Amino acid sequence: MSFDPATLKFDERGLIPAIAQDAQSGEVLMMAWMNAEAVTRTLETGRVTYWSRSRQAFWIKGETSGHVQDLVDFRVDCDRDCLLLQVNQTGPACHTNRRSCFYTALRDGEEVELMAPMGG
Amino acid sequence: MSFDPATLKFDERGLIPAIAQDAQSGEVLMMAWMNAEAVTRTLETGRVTYWSRSRQAFWIKGETSGHVQDLVDFRVDCDRDCLLLQVNQTGPACHTNRRSCFYTALRDGEEVELMAPMGG
Repeated sequence: MSFDPATLKFDERGLIPAIAQDAQSGEVLMMAWMNAEAVTRTLETGRVTYWSRSRQAFWIKGETSGHVQDLVDFRVDCDRDCLLLQVNQTGPACHTNRRSCFYTALRDGEEVELMAPMGG
Repeated sequence: MSFDPATLKFDERGLIPAIAQDAQSGEVLMMAWMNAEAVTRTLETGRVTYWSRSRQAFWIKGETSGHVQDLVDFRVDCDRDCLLLQVNQTGPACHTNRRSCFYTALRDGEEVELMAPMGG
């Protein structure tokens, strides 16, 4: 593969934000972080792999929950400092069991929940 | 308004990433940063306002180019450390005059451009 993850712009922690979007519906599912090795692993395996800032470890999305993200398209923004991953999401993307992490909206100045946790 | 931007989780620079998505098509347009005051200004004016890290100044999107973003829906993620802004985008969102900043994709290991700069 000729693409070199080192050509991306990582922040001072060596991380780049990655937005996961449902490849079919266009729904934005979540945002998490990758380091260069997570980018490489994601591209090599087709299974989206983040870097967990809290655990300081690779995080193969869905490895324990089964709610995996299969990579459909990998995109880079104009400044090369943000990634857009179009994915096939199995089950909920959010750890709260909601389809998307962005389930809270402001309506008339109040927070409202747009979606419920998915069933079992 | 009862929503308090101070309840969001800002990073050590006082910033939170904000993803802009076309409210009609679902296309992810760009990602930029906001501080608490940019959040307040965006909500109060309905005109998306970021914080420019390079200029260290508020950045009313489209103020000079006319390529404004009118806020349609303001969403917060489960960890309260990322925003999703659904917007009506006038013209291109990207400074390269492309509709989206995410115009580069990897195909067979090579970078390809998915869209051309918009005319006019």
